[in-house]
Amino acid sequence: MGDRAITEQAWDAFEQSVIYYQGHPIGTIAARDPDIAALNYDQCFIRDFVPSALLFLMKNRSKIVRNFLEETLKLQPKTGQLDCLKPSRGLMPASFKAGTIYGQEYLKADFGDHAIGRVAPADSCLWWIILLRAYVISTQDVELAHRADFQEGIRLILELCMVTRFDMYPMVLVPDGASMIDRRMGLYGHPLDIQSLFYGALRSSLELLVPNQENKQIIQAIHGRLRPLLRQLRENYWLDPDRLNVIYRFQVEEYGEEALNQFNIYSDSIPFYKLAKWLPEAGGYLAGNLGPSQLDTRFFAIGNLMAIIFSLADEYQSHRILNVIELRWGDLVGQMPMKLCYPALEDTDWKIVTGADPKNRPWSYHNGGNWPVLLWMLTAAARKMNRAELAHHAIAIAERRLLQDNWPEYYDGPDGRLIGKEARKLQTWTIAGYLLAKELIANPNHLRLITFDAEV
Amino acid sequence: MGDRAITEQAWDAFEQSVIYYQGHPIGTIAARDPDIAALNYDQCFIRDFVPSALLFLMKNRSKIVRNFLEETLKLQPKTGQLDCLKPSRGLMPASFKAGTIYGQEYLKADFGDHAIGRVAPADSCLWWIILLRAYVISTQDVELAHRADFQEGIRLILELCMVTRFDMYPMVLVPDGASMIDRRMGLYGHPLDIQSLFYGALRSSLELLVPNQENKQIIQAIHGRLRPLLRQLRENYWLDPDRLNVIYRFQVEEYGEEALNQFNIYSDSIPFYKLAKWLPEAGGYLAGNLGPSQLDTRFFAIGNLMAIIFSLADEYQSHRILNVIELRWGDLVGQMPMKLCYPALEDTDWKIVTGADPKNRPWSYHNGGNWPVLLWMLTAAARKMNRAELAHHAIAIAERRLLQDNWPEYYDGPDGRLIGKEARKLQTWTIAGYLLAKELIANPNHLRLITFDAEV
Repeated sequence: MGDRAITEQAWDAFEQSVIYYQGHPIGTIAARDPDIAALNYDQCFIRDFVPSALLFLMKNRSKIVRNFLEETLKLQPKTGQLDCLKPSRGLMPASFKAGTIYGQEYLKADFGDHAIGRVAPADSCLWWIILLRAYVISTQDVELAHRADFQEGIRLILELCMVTRFDMYPMVLVPDGASMIDRRMGLYGHPLDIQSLFYGALRSSLELLVPNQENKQIIQAIHGRLRPLLRQLRENYWLDPDRLNVIYRFQVEEYGEEALNQFNIYSDSIPFYKLAKWLPEAGGYLAGNLGPSQLDTRFFAIGNLMAIIFSLADEYQSHRILNVIELRWGDLVGQMPMKLCYPALEDTDWKIVTGADPKNRPWSYHNGGNWPVLLWMLTAAARKMNRAELAHHAIAIAERRLLQDNWPEYYDGPDGRLIGKEARKLQTWTIAGYLLAKELIANPNHLRLITFDAEV
Repeated sequence: MGDRAITEQAWDAFEQSVIYYQGHPIGTIAARDPDIAALNYDQCFIRDFVPSALLFLMKNRSKIVRNFLEETLKLQPKTGQLDCLKPSRGLMPASFKAGTIYGQEYLKADFGDHAIGRVAPADSCLWWIILLRAYVISTQDVELAHRADFQEGIRLILELCMVTRFDMYPMVLVPDGASMIDRRMGLYGHPLDIQSLFYGALRSSLELLVPNQENKQIIQAIHGRLRPLLRQLRENYWLDPDRLNVIYRFQVEEYGEEALNQFNIYSDSIPFYKLAKWLPEAGGYLAGNLGPSQLDTRFFAIGNLMAIIFSLADEYQSHRILNVIELRWGDLVGQMPMKLCYPALEDTDWKIVTGADPKNRPWSYHNGGNWPVLLWMLTAAARKMNRAELAHHAIAIAERRLLQDNWPEYYDGPDGRLIGKEARKLQTWTIAGYLLAKELIANPNHLRLITFDAEV
């Protein structure tokens, strides 16, 4: 099948995902699979809408993005900072759905209060800020971002992320399952995926916030946070052969401010022999999580790819991350770009860390499944580093399957060869992710919507 | 050796632990072991001082407690709610130490910034409020608690605990290692030990806060929190044979507000066959932790005993917890009252959950070690429920060893027969815990310093 035929059919499917509210387009539905019970797949997820939104912006259809930003902002709780029964002030919902009551349309938001396992989304509000910046860059509609309600919305999100808590680190503290990986997977504390988005949201906010008296304190707080956050991630999350060697020989039980092994990591907790064999000499990546006696050495795609896109990883590190993807292509891309997390937790690890979650069985779903939506992030990261050949290769692999398989949500198996066991078909962000990747390759100038310069 | 001789020698050792600052007694040193490097054992820990303080109050030596409360209050950060480089506003240090600079004495606080693994103490501020209430009950010195700086201190602690975060529950969200168990042990999220202290601190605050305009919002927040917290703990943390059966047959993947298995717990993650065999028909206890797809069925002594003392567990539950201790005496008390946590994490569980921490190897230290300081909590809980015979029995067991072993910090082994591998001798809270237990038995009226009525 020709390339043109695939993108045309993708566009057709994509257009049908648009959700309308009071006569206006405001988002895209998660999936339109007619064969499986909808559960919450008939809603518009904030994180799922991001690739759709970027695509609309690139096609000069910014109205839907503006509507989305305005309506979701209205869903954000503005009061009740101490009330545990309401969603937290500043939080953005995981998803929303248009309903009708007495002939009146309304939007019903889910802040995790309906979701399986009752997890609150921490990534939604970060994506929201990042998307608002993309909208402003694309449309030059600075007025929207400068409106009092948008300025307040940004402030409330940042306060929610930065307010005091039981923590001594510059990273955001979240419970397990607080992002796209919304089931238990050992991502409590300071998971990379969230930290990368946090960094992007902080950088975005500096561009969006008007430097007036009202914003003074929060702008100051951002400046105070960026460098320690950057340093912590570039230094303590970083894994490459040299760093592995340092960690391997760490002193432990160091007391006092001068401790080198600041997190008291024990060598025995790290799978050194597997890692030393797997990690290419020219490779490196950011670890999945960091905390007391905890260094999660799994490779998480969102955190690493967005770190390149946001210049959270420096230039040297960005190339090393791409080297790992290139040199471990069979593991990380395989038959479908690409693994959300590698390797999978197996056996006792799976049982203990996921709580024996059958949906996240080894090499399935979040736990070692392949997610086509990641194609756009891989393409953006590769293109930013002038390594478009990686993106071309990945897109070609995806094109062999996506249309024919009817745009599944995810793929299973160590090489991503199986359509995901519980994957929906016609998953919107699979379609949007593919179209966005094509767009970024065709017109790399669009990268500016989502990238940042190296300088803070 | 006679009983009198032991308590006399205990008092002698205890008196030598008092720390002076600017000529006044302000706390007790953690340990005075001359044979092991002090590290931070030469400091006064907030949590360690609690049994010392209760003992001083009972002996009408309240001045040291007052000094302690006043000086630690000065150490609490009052500003910088958004600054990640300073300890959080409202936090109380884990410990402090008197130093001298240019001939001037000063107090140096450790908020976890020096501690191994850099963990911030969440329990210190909760114990501080609970101790302030005990001081007021004992001395009738309400003026101290009503002083503006004390009212502010209480408010800041509660704000720190109750402020918005990425969480949908009434429990406090903490990172791993945020309490007496200050190393990685799977206690991230909503560990019981912290929730029990949180409940006690909320109840205490209602008695301590002046109902004026300044406190209105926080008092309202406490009232909004107490019932949901109580309900969550009494219902969803509770484990007894009936409840085990319900969990065993849970439906999973329930979406929506009506879900019974609210936390989406998978049966396979729970060691049902071991538990069904171990848990006596007449027994029950509060689980160690609860979160998405996570129900930690280990027995934690502090959380369960303090739940009885604070009436967080109802009367029926309180008796069932004591039944477990009585009927599983060999496991939970053994040769030294009593286990901090039972059973120990072993093999792969130990490696994954503790990060291969050798100090917490199976049946040692926090991971299945026996801690004599718990004697006072066991005594208070048993005495409150009119089951003093349990306390008498436990005290008799402790007396066989404590003096002769020179008051070790903890004991190791499945039955607590070995002096802890890295245990300090002359550990103050071991001594104070023993003396406090004796005092509570001799004069049960003192229980009022630390207990609450059933009604909220």
